[in-house]
Amino acid sequence: MVTSRDVAQVAGVSQATVSRVLRDAGPVKAETRTRVLEAAAQIGYQPNALARAMRTRRSGTVGVVVSDLTNPFYPGLIEELSAALGSAGCRMALWTSGGPGQDAALEAIRQGVLDGVLFTGATAKSAALREAMRAGAPAVTLNRAMPGWQCDQVVSDNRVGGQRIARYFAAAGHRRVGYIGGPAAPSTSADREKGFLSGLAATGLSLPDEYRRGGDFTYLRGREAMRELLSLTQPPTAVFCVNDLTALGALDGARSLGRKVPDDVWVVGYDDIAMASWDAFDLTTVRQPTGEMARIAVQLLLSRVAEPATAPRRVTMPAELIVRGSTAHHGGDEAQSAGKPPATRARRPNAPTREPRLARSR
Amino acid sequence: MVTSRDVAQVAGVSQATVSRVLRDAGPVKAETRTRVLEAAAQIGYQPNALARAMRTRRSGTVGVVVSDLTNPFYPGLIEELSAALGSAGCRMALWTSGGPGQDAALEAIRQGVLDGVLFTGATAKSAALREAMRAGAPAVTLNRAMPGWQCDQVVSDNRVGGQRIARYFAAAGHRRVGYIGGPAAPSTSADREKGFLSGLAATGLSLPDEYRRGGDFTYLRGREAMRELLSLTQPPTAVFCVNDLTALGALDGARSLGRKVPDDVWVVGYDDIAMASWDAFDLTTVRQPTGEMARIAVQLLLSRVAEPATAPRRVTMPAELIVRGSTAHHGGDEAQSAGKPPATRARRPNAPTREPRLARSR
Repeated sequence: MVTSRDVAQVAGVSQATVSRVLRDAGPVKAETRTRVLEAAAQIGYQPNALARAMRTRRSGTVGVVVSDLTNPFYPGLIEELSAALGSAGCRMALWTSGGPGQDAALEAIRQGVLDGVLFTGATAKSAALREAMRAGAPAVTLNRAMPGWQCDQVVSDNRVGGQRIARYFAAAGHRRVGYIGGPAAPSTSADREKGFLSGLAATGLSLPDEYRRGGDFTYLRGREAMRELLSLTQPPTAVFCVNDLTALGALDGARSLGRKVPDDVWVVGYDDIAMASWDAFDLTTVRQPTGEMARIAVQLLLSRVAEPATAPRRVTMPAELIVRGSTAHHGGDEAQSAGKPPATRARRPNAPTREPRLARSR
Repeated sequence: MVTSRDVAQVAGVSQATVSRVLRDAGPVKAETRTRVLEAAAQIGYQPNALARAMRTRRSGTVGVVVSDLTNPFYPGLIEELSAALGSAGCRMALWTSGGPGQDAALEAIRQGVLDGVLFTGATAKSAALREAMRAGAPAVTLNRAMPGWQCDQVVSDNRVGGQRIARYFAAAGHRRVGYIGGPAAPSTSADREKGFLSGLAATGLSLPDEYRRGGDFTYLRGREAMRELLSLTQPPTAVFCVNDLTALGALDGARSLGRKVPDDVWVVGYDDIAMASWDAFDLTTVRQPTGEMARIAVQLLLSRVAEPATAPRRVTMPAELIVRGSTAHHGGDEAQSAGKPPATRARRPNAPTREPRLARSR
């Protein structure tokens, strides 16, 4: 390995002079400085990163904690984070929480080998986040909110998103609506549910217990819960699923019973993952602007690393309803078409015959 | 921050003694040793990780480079790698190649902040891999092979997998078979294609240019290529897609033209990602045993970190054909059913009427 001693030899100066030049510390003649830099470039000297990190107390690495890579929402978000961190010259260290990787993440936070941490799947029970905040580590929660916690937070407006779906159902004349929820702890499922319920209440609709199913954000549970709902004597005519992956399972659950979507039942998801727009699903959903959320989260984290004393900031992005073939189309202002290929559009009926023309839902 | 100086003060010994105890280096009385360890525990002393890494020249971090997180094959593989690395007490640093993250990975390899690197999407053009090997970094390629390169490699038998599909098509009586390929550089697509072509040749079938479409491993290209193939006057009756994501696009391409799978056309993918078994797709495919591949790759990498001089090793895992509803079912030994729910199985015809009973294909 090339060392600063080699640089000193080639430049014909002392090692102390090389050190002063490379650390930009102390007086050095311009001519000497040039000679040292040329020598370093000539023999390919790279200052040791660990040694430099020791001096600067920065590792150049940002930790990202995800809860579940098998939910396509997270790989999509991580792609965006990877790009944003790479542009900022940072390395990304990734852990999945829950698995054994969690311990490694906790240790890295304790030992300070990370400059900061981005949490994409935090809950009030997140040991890693609590630990990071106790240790004063720069931390940003992304996607899920942590009300009352003193850290930067970037979320989309899950409550308004849930409300919007309730109003969309009500405006379309649905009277029996169903819901397949998520775990209680994450703010995303809690807020979407609160919004959905308040939206139903505002339009005079209710959600009886038999139309309400618990879930866990997975395809398999969505499939199972939808089969339960569609097996009721009076099944719901529109079902909101707490996330897209659950909704894809719900669509397959309806498919497995020979039920037609949207003719027999409407299905709506949440997130707008890439698959939502595939022909096989053509899913109406609420879009989370993940690219913009990732870029803002990285900006907040890096600015906090630079100025740790800044008061915590919270950024809430708008939620946008994207209407596709898993519900009836309408010309209202509320929903934006997702620009499907014409061949696909043409196959879909514009609305089930039992549905009245949709009014603006807000 | 608590330092070794604080420990020395609490224990009532010199800082040099504390250092000897914590590094387990040099003679220390048993009683003194106990007093130092108790003091360290009492005041919550954590030896600085960067300082320790400087001494041991190990960072405890393994780099993982993926080519595309939006292909669900990679998140699935990374989940497995994350678990395997976590069990071994290692942190995982993740980069996507191609994006700006690539530069960060290259720099980390040059500077030695990684103990080793796992490449999941390497090609002969991979600058990062070439750089890692030039610098003598412990590197393992996983999923894609690098013939002639001096590094550990873990792959599944893509050539045999391709052959098996050709024989499966031939045994079912297909005469017009199609192929939607991948990029030329990755060994996975190259080997699957070679195996498929040699398998066709062995059974007297050929692949005319008009039944052959180039691709890029994506859903969108699979969809488009399938629409091209099905628009031919004599379309193929069975299409092999180089990976599952391409095959999901191909299924949606057939769907968008109103063609029935498997009645009008058989579709086969490669990888067996989780989605392949969903009702919406029910895709026949070749399974890569990603969990076992990930565990072996991590073992190889860690043993190479411990003993860098070991000769390069190559592990090839078997490829297993998984028959589902996107092709006709049969009772042969070659194919294993994936254990679909009965409700789903019942919907599927056992075989298109034009197909003879399938013989064992090898």
